[in-house]
Amino acid sequence: MNKRIVLYILGWILIVEGAAMQLPFIVSIVYAEKNGIYFLAVGLALAAIGFLIVRKRPKNMTMYQKEGFISTALSWLVLSLAGSLPFFLSGEIKNFEDALFETVSGFTTTGASVVPNVEQLSNCMNFWRSLSIWLGGMGVLVFLLALIPKVGGQQNMYLMKAESPGPIFGKVTPKIRDYAAILYIVYFGLTALEFILLMCGGMPIFDAINVSMSTAGTGGFGIRSAGIAAYDSYYLQTVIAVFMLLFGINFSAYLLIITRKFKQAFKITEIWVYLGIIVVATVLIAINISSLYPSAYDSAHQSFFYVTSLLTTTGFGITDANQWPAFSKAIIVIITFIGACAGSTGGGFKISRIIILLKEIKKELAIIVHPRTVHTVKMDGKKVPHETTRSISIFFTIYVVLFFTTFLVISLDNFDFITNFTAAAATLNNTGPGLSMVGPVGSYAAFSPLSKLMLSFTMLAGRLELFPLILMFFPAAWKKNG
Amino acid sequence: MNKRIVLYILGWILIVEGAAMQLPFIVSIVYAEKNGIYFLAVGLALAAIGFLIVRKRPKNMTMYQKEGFISTALSWLVLSLAGSLPFFLSGEIKNFEDALFETVSGFTTTGASVVPNVEQLSNCMNFWRSLSIWLGGMGVLVFLLALIPKVGGQQNMYLMKAESPGPIFGKVTPKIRDYAAILYIVYFGLTALEFILLMCGGMPIFDAINVSMSTAGTGGFGIRSAGIAAYDSYYLQTVIAVFMLLFGINFSAYLLIITRKFKQAFKITEIWVYLGIIVVATVLIAINISSLYPSAYDSAHQSFFYVTSLLTTTGFGITDANQWPAFSKAIIVIITFIGACAGSTGGGFKISRIIILLKEIKKELAIIVHPRTVHTVKMDGKKVPHETTRSISIFFTIYVVLFFTTFLVISLDNFDFITNFTAAAATLNNTGPGLSMVGPVGSYAAFSPLSKLMLSFTMLAGRLELFPLILMFFPAAWKKNG
Repeated sequence: MNKRIVLYILGWILIVEGAAMQLPFIVSIVYAEKNGIYFLAVGLALAAIGFLIVRKRPKNMTMYQKEGFISTALSWLVLSLAGSLPFFLSGEIKNFEDALFETVSGFTTTGASVVPNVEQLSNCMNFWRSLSIWLGGMGVLVFLLALIPKVGGQQNMYLMKAESPGPIFGKVTPKIRDYAAILYIVYFGLTALEFILLMCGGMPIFDAINVSMSTAGTGGFGIRSAGIAAYDSYYLQTVIAVFMLLFGINFSAYLLIITRKFKQAFKITEIWVYLGIIVVATVLIAINISSLYPSAYDSAHQSFFYVTSLLTTTGFGITDANQWPAFSKAIIVIITFIGACAGSTGGGFKISRIIILLKEIKKELAIIVHPRTVHTVKMDGKKVPHETTRSISIFFTIYVVLFFTTFLVISLDNFDFITNFTAAAATLNNTGPGLSMVGPVGSYAAFSPLSKLMLSFTMLAGRLELFPLILMFFPAAWKKNG
Repeated sequence: MNKRIVLYILGWILIVEGAAMQLPFIVSIVYAEKNGIYFLAVGLALAAIGFLIVRKRPKNMTMYQKEGFISTALSWLVLSLAGSLPFFLSGEIKNFEDALFETVSGFTTTGASVVPNVEQLSNCMNFWRSLSIWLGGMGVLVFLLALIPKVGGQQNMYLMKAESPGPIFGKVTPKIRDYAAILYIVYFGLTALEFILLMCGGMPIFDAINVSMSTAGTGGFGIRSAGIAAYDSYYLQTVIAVFMLLFGINFSAYLLIITRKFKQAFKITEIWVYLGIIVVATVLIAINISSLYPSAYDSAHQSFFYVTSLLTTTGFGITDANQWPAFSKAIIVIITFIGACAGSTGGGFKISRIIILLKEIKKELAIIVHPRTVHTVKMDGKKVPHETTRSISIFFTIYVVLFFTTFLVISLDNFDFITNFTAAAATLNNTGPGLSMVGPVGSYAAFSPLSKLMLSFTMLAGRLELFPLILMFFPAAWKKNG
């Protein structure tokens, strides 16, 4: 383990976060809020510590997968701890575990909140919540790689790999820095486009900024306690739904479109499956809830919004889905676990992983029928290497184990089964709201400090795709390279 | 696909079932019940059809894994359809889907019931329910192999493999017929021992016969609607709990003990993990429920009974666990999924599979840390072949997919989330009772015919360990060998 390079990366993370905190400080100046001072002070302190650390470049810049994973895990822990300071020091969120939960929820793009009434927070705090989602969505290390030349040279791919959601099947452009920069340009462009369209629909500017960032990261924090229901306009709600859908798409599709490789872009199996799930789930729920709404259009609108919101793990709500029939709720629970495309800002298990697992079933059945033939699993026309399928299977196991561990630990608080089950699901998949107490109109405030720490861990593990965080508990990872 | 041999096996299955039906007929004579005539008539008819089929031995006795799986799946379908006839024809269970559900529930040792008040059934019907559990527990094909010389020669191992629960790690004695016979002798011996101990505690003889068979198959059908709570004696309840524990143990341990290989018997990792789970879960629940019971001994008794009942997937109840705190209920739900040892009569995911999956996680982390070292997974000191781990991973995927499919389909009936979730879990794992409407004091009667068919399929898939039943939907399996 090359500890020097891990520390070096953490230094840069502090600098980036310190710089990012100047944005909510600017917001506080615009709205004349005195709590903005905490962003200025904490931000400067973080940046100062960061500069002290990165002043000396480590001699040995060697980085392997292990260092990539550990750096990523520690970076996100540091980000979350430091990011919670303005909430806590200003007293706008009283308990430290609550401030930490809220910050983790932001950076991991979960959008689960312990603040029952977000309108009581000052604007700069709400802006920081939304900004954390935006930064966490595409990845803070990816941002770092886009900005800072040669943190670890070509070995940066290990950082990229550890932080990007989902298995990567396509070719990555050779220059990681260019790749990271293009990703962020597309990301910024799409966010700006949503902002403009929301403004066109008459949404107030501060709302439009926050909602756009929260949609982009598929996070789901709102600045209104009524959620998206506060914007009572089919136009605005549809714009948000469509952008949730767009941010849940594998970003390599956008990169292919930019480089005019349209044919390749339209041949990504995962995206077609993703769109197929949206259509099927929307239709099934719309039929199932039709008796609750005045017209078929209303049912379809409600259904489409919820399906995109939960499949992309954004977690925005426009109605209380607790009232829906059991079949619709079952679909909602299932698509929460499915999640969005790999390489998007969405969470969940990821559609490409599910495709690979289902193809593995088909392969196994074929082996039973024709034991002496060679069988392979292909994705987008290419053979999927054995290491990838094995890694996906193991990911699946850790995922289920972590789900049940979270469920068990938070059950100690003695809330009802549905609350515990959906809270575990909503944090692991980075969705945010669940059902019952943690439903779209509820909050996570009532959980005990232990549960909040457990749920924070689960959110981080879900966002970082399990391995980086789990590896921290594996003693061999910390030993010196030898 | 060698269809002739599949048909030949089905013929034998009909003969065995026809013969088995003469036992409840005898019971009906003892109790002078006129409905016993249905067992005599249906039994003779089944046997007659069976003899017509097996009269001519197929020339080609070749059987591969494919034929083994398909024979097993079809055998169990035939068993269930034919076994439900006495319930249905006598009118004691009115709807055919209910009669089928009850029979499938018996043979698969699930113990889920659509009969709200079992005391209304005649004794011969109750005896048939218990007998189906006893036969299904160790396996009907295994029974066939023990009795009938050379159904398919050495290739019988494919039948054995398809019907036995869990992956087989130990060596199987070369002669399948001897192995099957010894298994049944141990099984019968343990059942008889429980019967004697229950009689010693003053349980009425008919109750003792039924409870012993139901415990042996880890099934959970009772002949009292109050369940095991009807036997208000700590001695009786403890005998039952201990025997549930014994029937949940890998039977290869008993075979090793019989052949005086004590050292090997005490070195089976799976059994130690199984006992460890029982101890930990019993202690945790006992502490969690201590305020509900007068003494620590009472809490421990309740907890131990439930833990063995659910970990072995028997499903017997002595109290309404719906009243327990959320943490205890969470443990109960989790151990239902874990299940008993491979090679026992219990259901669930099986402990050995979980051990292998957890070892795979450890191996994957070791690969990340030391990518250039060769890493292997070992079980009981032996290397686990790649095919086994791959097959377990795929089993896991099918298991989760089937769980969510069942959950989704039965949600159409619009019962509550906990009912649907635990009903899906209790049928897939062959446990029987769940929570809420399908709790220990509830029943499955209120589900729609579609849900009952879905749940019956799930019970069969769970008992036959998924692959045989799933293979039936794979068109290539039905093609001629070529």
